[in-house]
Amino acid sequence: MTTISKDADRTTFINVFTVDPANQSRLVDLLINVSDTYVRQAPGFISASLHRSLDGTKVTMYSQWRSLADYEAMRRDPRPVPYLQEALTIAKFEPGIYEVVESFAPAAREEGTPPT
Amino acid sequence: MTTISKDADRTTFINVFTVDPANQSRLVDLLINVSDTYVRQAPGFISASLHRSLDGTKVTMYSQWRSLADYEAMRRDPRPVPYLQEALTIAKFEPGIYEVVESFAPAAREEGTPPT
Repeated sequence: MTTISKDADRTTFINVFTVDPANQSRLVDLLINVSDTYVRQAPGFISASLHRSLDGTKVTMYSQWRSLADYEAMRRDPRPVPYLQEALTIAKFEPGIYEVVESFAPAAREEGTPPT
Repeated sequence: MTTISKDADRTTFINVFTVDPANQSRLVDLLINVSDTYVRQAPGFISASLHRSLDGTKVTMYSQWRSLADYEAMRRDPRPVPYLQEALTIAKFEPGIYEVVESFAPAAREEGTPPT
């Protein structure tokens, strides 16, 4: 489970892979494999959640790290590299490094009714 | 706060806006305003978190809805439209509709230590 909060001191990565729908399952399997085997073992790793687009054309990894330096250290590890190279033979990769600005909860819709 | 879990029955939207860094703050303000004023009042809205990329070129909204139909009903509401039209004068919009495939927690790094 991943928790998003603007008050947490962490660096967020939203990495979008664009893929032919015929290859979406293969890309998902590759990213599960590399995350389970290497990424989640790396120092400073906090959490990641993998997303599959309903139209088949995207796979997006939402991940949180203690710092950008921790993420970069993981990317210098040679062991996950073959997985990522294989991913890039079937997908285009658009990385993004973020901070959380704000979170929104549902508004109470009727006076006197507490938000659910 | 937003919680990501593969077991939750919901639809996830990861909408990436690409923007000139000079306009990133204005885009963030616009999206905060429309989310606070309209989006979080919509039926079926569960949660959203707004992200600002550290390089200034992206703003990404991660949002969760009870269903795609609830999201589409909100998008048919004419009241938020002017905010989104103004956003599109300064940003490129790349939407994505997802389900969560898997979440990853940090691995225990020492033998004999159970995963947390």
